[in-house]
Amino acid sequence: MSTPQIRGVIGYTITPFAADGSVDLAALGQSIERLIQSGVHAIAPLGSTGEGAYLSDSEWESVVRFSQENIAGRVPSVVSVSDLTTARTVQRAQLAQACGATAVMVLPASYWKLTETEIVDHYKAVGAAIDIPIMLYNNPGTSGTDLSVELILRILNEVKNVTMVKESTGDIQRMHRLYKATGGQVAFYNGCNPLTLEALVAGAAGWCTAAPNLIPQLNLALWDAVQKHDLEQARSLFYRQYELLEYVTRRGLPTTIKAGLKMLGLDVGAPRLPLQPLDPQGSAYLKGLLDELAVSR
Amino acid sequence: MSTPQIRGVIGYTITPFAADGSVDLAALGQSIERLIQSGVHAIAPLGSTGEGAYLSDSEWESVVRFSQENIAGRVPSVVSVSDLTTARTVQRAQLAQACGATAVMVLPASYWKLTETEIVDHYKAVGAAIDIPIMLYNNPGTSGTDLSVELILRILNEVKNVTMVKESTGDIQRMHRLYKATGGQVAFYNGCNPLTLEALVAGAAGWCTAAPNLIPQLNLALWDAVQKHDLEQARSLFYRQYELLEYVTRRGLPTTIKAGLKMLGLDVGAPRLPLQPLDPQGSAYLKGLLDELAVSR
Amino acid sequence: MSTPQIRGVIGYTITPFAADGSVDLAALGQSIERLIQSGVHAIAPLGSTGEGAYLSDSEWESVVRFSQENIAGRVPSVVSVSDLTTARTVQRAQLAQACGATAVMVLPASYWKLTETEIVDHYKAVGAAIDIPIMLYNNPGTSGTDLSVELILRILNEVKNVTMVKESTGDIQRMHRLYKATGGQVAFYNGCNPLTLEALVAGAAGWCTAAPNLIPQLNLALWDAVQKHDLEQARSLFYRQYELLEYVTRRGLPTTIKAGLKMLGLDVGAPRLPLQPLDPQGSAYLKGLLDELAVSR
Amino acid sequence: MSTPQIRGVIGYTITPFAADGSVDLAALGQSIERLIQSGVHAIAPLGSTGEGAYLSDSEWESVVRFSQENIAGRVPSVVSVSDLTTARTVQRAQLAQACGATAVMVLPASYWKLTETEIVDHYKAVGAAIDIPIMLYNNPGTSGTDLSVELILRILNEVKNVTMVKESTGDIQRMHRLYKATGGQVAFYNGCNPLTLEALVAGAAGWCTAAPNLIPQLNLALWDAVQKHDLEQARSLFYRQYELLEYVTRRGLPTTIKAGLKMLGLDVGAPRLPLQPLDPQGSAYLKGLLDELAVSR
Repeated sequence: MSTPQIRGVIGYTITPFAADGSVDLAALGQSIERLIQSGVHAIAPLGSTGEGAYLSDSEWESVVRFSQENIAGRVPSVVSVSDLTTARTVQRAQLAQACGATAVMVLPASYWKLTETEIVDHYKAVGAAIDIPIMLYNNPGTSGTDLSVELILRILNEVKNVTMVKESTGDIQRMHRLYKATGGQVAFYNGCNPLTLEALVAGAAGWCTAAPNLIPQLNLALWDAVQKHDLEQARSLFYRQYELLEYVTRRGLPTTIKAGLKMLGLDVGAPRLPLQPLDPQGSAYLKGLLDELAVSR
Repeated sequence: MSTPQIRGVIGYTITPFAADGSVDLAALGQSIERLIQSGVHAIAPLGSTGEGAYLSDSEWESVVRFSQENIAGRVPSVVSVSDLTTARTVQRAQLAQACGATAVMVLPASYWKLTETEIVDHYKAVGAAIDIPIMLYNNPGTSGTDLSVELILRILNEVKNVTMVKESTGDIQRMHRLYKATGGQVAFYNGCNPLTLEALVAGAAGWCTAAPNLIPQLNLALWDAVQKHDLEQARSLFYRQYELLEYVTRRGLPTTIKAGLKMLGLDVGAPRLPLQPLDPQGSAYLKGLLDELAVSR
Repeated sequence: MSTPQIRGVIGYTITPFAADGSVDLAALGQSIERLIQSGVHAIAPLGSTGEGAYLSDSEWESVVRFSQENIAGRVPSVVSVSDLTTARTVQRAQLAQACGATAVMVLPASYWKLTETEIVDHYKAVGAAIDIPIMLYNNPGTSGTDLSVELILRILNEVKNVTMVKESTGDIQRMHRLYKATGGQVAFYNGCNPLTLEALVAGAAGWCTAAPNLIPQLNLALWDAVQKHDLEQARSLFYRQYELLEYVTRRGLPTTIKAGLKMLGLDVGAPRLPLQPLDPQGSAYLKGLLDELAVSR
Repeated sequence: MSTPQIRGVIGYTITPFAADGSVDLAALGQSIERLIQSGVHAIAPLGSTGEGAYLSDSEWESVVRFSQENIAGRVPSVVSVSDLTTARTVQRAQLAQACGATAVMVLPASYWKLTETEIVDHYKAVGAAIDIPIMLYNNPGTSGTDLSVELILRILNEVKNVTMVKESTGDIQRMHRLYKATGGQVAFYNGCNPLTLEALVAGAAGWCTAAPNLIPQLNLALWDAVQKHDLEQARSLFYRQYELLEYVTRRGLPTTIKAGLKMLGLDVGAPRLPLQPLDPQGSAYLKGLLDELAVSR
């Protein structure tokens, strides 16, 4: 499999809900359009931010179809297809491929703790069922499973269409060790917003983030500054957006991004219960951050 | 709501699968019958052991209907109805009640980290939708959410049909603090097998466990010894079954209980992928433990 | 080495300081006398509670000499001799033996993380230098080093005068595993006050505690109830003293025991800086607990 | 107090021991000379690497006197004066000042967990006793105490000669938050070798490290590359020395640096027991790393 062509800022979509709780495809279309117009280098539908875990099967299918039709190949797409069972993960991966996804993302979601063999075989099953690349996603905070660097290397070795790694532990040492172990040849992506400056400096191929829904120009400018090796500018841009990156990550992406989009004029509804809309205190804080960053948003 | 009548050893059912992956209701009936004949004081269908998280909605519905019909009121039942969304948890709780469940169990399952308000409101929504008691279940190892003692007390206070607490952190101090804070009046249950001796001594009203699928007489004898204040006997019985309790808990309940049941003559199939059948090394170890305990099983 | 004869409640001494910061031997004598008169089964000078880590070499020597003279063989004694260097630990152990200690206690104190070989060799060096038994002490909370059950078993095997284990992790599973691995033959002691009921039920040979400085009768009654297998009484006694046990452990033993002794009429001064006397809020809480327990203290 | 003039690579000294266990001042002089000749920007005697915690008072005094005489003002010096008691920390700080130290470093070493007030008052006591700046040192791995960013800010605010912060948690977010909270005005230093690239990029004023005993040119070149904003070069230099930085940090600095110095021709003896010389396997690995880096050491 050739080196993946996905580099840069990968923007995550939210999944808008109407007042009656159904998926609001019209608003989804608008949010995708905003992301693409802002200049992100790729789009990632149905990720954690997209509340993929809270959708029914039929909702999930309608969102993936609609998203791919609206992206329409203008930028690459990475569809999150993770599910608790292997069978359903495979079905979702096949559906994503059929809809034209550039790649799929797989988190080793679990209820029971999985053995290493079970994890590897899960990736093998997905890999065997599709022809597009897989981005392995490590995020123990949401999945409950922490993939060690050694295990990631083993999966990279045994499942040939796993060609990308999204690291969200927040521990930069994982990236250092992936880089060293593969001679800088594996494409790794930063999934922890407040670590972005360092991850890019350490060699990350991209930044997986929901922040471009709110501050795309600042996100893209940070990416560009690092690419130009303009360290002074990169540091300044990073600290400028740091509090927002830290807050949306800590407080929860669907909750904060949906609140922020409404502040910016796009009503995408509330997250799905048990998740609740951002409370007044959080909203005031987020509003303050957005106002402060408004000039160069 | 009156004090719950559920005391003693609460046996968890597995969910058998046929070779084609479908639910094997005939085997489920046999496993329920074994548990009831063994003398357990209550039955808990569709818990963690029952792979409830891995079932489709229609499978889940067929299992709860079939289980309640087969239990047929001979012992109380506690049906696990947890789901990632509040809406589906409510639906499952209502279905369990309609099928005749004595109580439901609710784990604050989550993908995104929930605020305390979101957790309380989740329990309130379930509580308002049903008339039977709720057993609150705290198990950060599977749910990713650790309910502090303070939060549990708040839920007990604000949601009147939450009358029981199943604690599975493995930290006996949680039970001490629940006991002290409620003057010994809240019914708490042990969900951590290798902590059973201590939890019962500390005042637990019951023991939620899948072990009676394999060694019911030892489990019940331990319960009885503590009730009779026969400390010498209780300690001896506990250490006798300790390694098995520790192993099935550490290695995963669906995996080990299904393997053990087959060794004991009841084929309930494999757990659902990504979970795999117990490997040869684990099987040999489990077989050794079961053989050793065979006399007084 | 024969089975140690130390069983029961092992009372820890504080180290009183005069207003000028020097050791107050007169007050030390009184506190030792109080402990012995209360009926504790053994005395442990210079432990964590005794601020051994904060004493100069000459202070340490004067305290061990004075303590042993005042205990005068009326009960067994276990002297804590831990130091960051092996050389000084050996010197202290030899001095303790020369002064008549029944046994010494050794915590693998460390600044740099030690390898398993370094830990084993540390115990070997102490063991080779003395003829009395060693109580191995595991308390990662103060030492920074957590001795696994496997490593403890290795040390028990390789250093013949390590015959006792004091476990202070607060994790009852460590005691279960020690018990099972040695067929109940190793003498283990509880060092985590709020775990006492369970540790004794699980088979602990004793309870290492500073609480008898304040509530000796309750501590001894709990021990006796478990020895008589009176579970109802043991549970009741444990929960009665639970809040005090939990508080002194969590808030720090030198700080709280010194404050409590003053409330009970024995002025032993303040702990040594950076430790400060208990603040007014803590003092009010502790006073309330002591008053409540006063009848059966 | 004016902004500290300490910037760049701050080299830590080891404390050489002769075969009889005594301090080997001649070798110490040679190791200081090597560091200064290599071009480090400052020297830090008696830190963790210098086994300060394992020295007697008189040894400590002789080392600080000798070190300061040999540094002779050619570069600034930061002497670690941490001790378990406040009194002895103050004495050491005063002695360091008397010997000509540019600044002192204070780790909140503890046996008993300290309250925030106790920690602040400890720094106040040291601050009041000397006229030179204090570098606050946060390293929960060795001290057992983790100073939150909020507490560090409070100490910076309340103790006027605390003007520098050495952060060794390995969590880059601490540096981000210090930077943001002080508008980039507090001088923070990286104490976690494998985080150096990122810490410098994030704005650290210096790098506290024992590595210049072995690979000074690579360390200094990395510092220089970041100062010149040469990101490509900085990344390349960092990954080149990464494995050595990671290994000496993980395996223990006195152990590995002493082994490495011997390989490079300077025999500084073994670390003090319980620390042992690097074992053969570790030595072979370290030798391989040093050989590989030899050209540009």
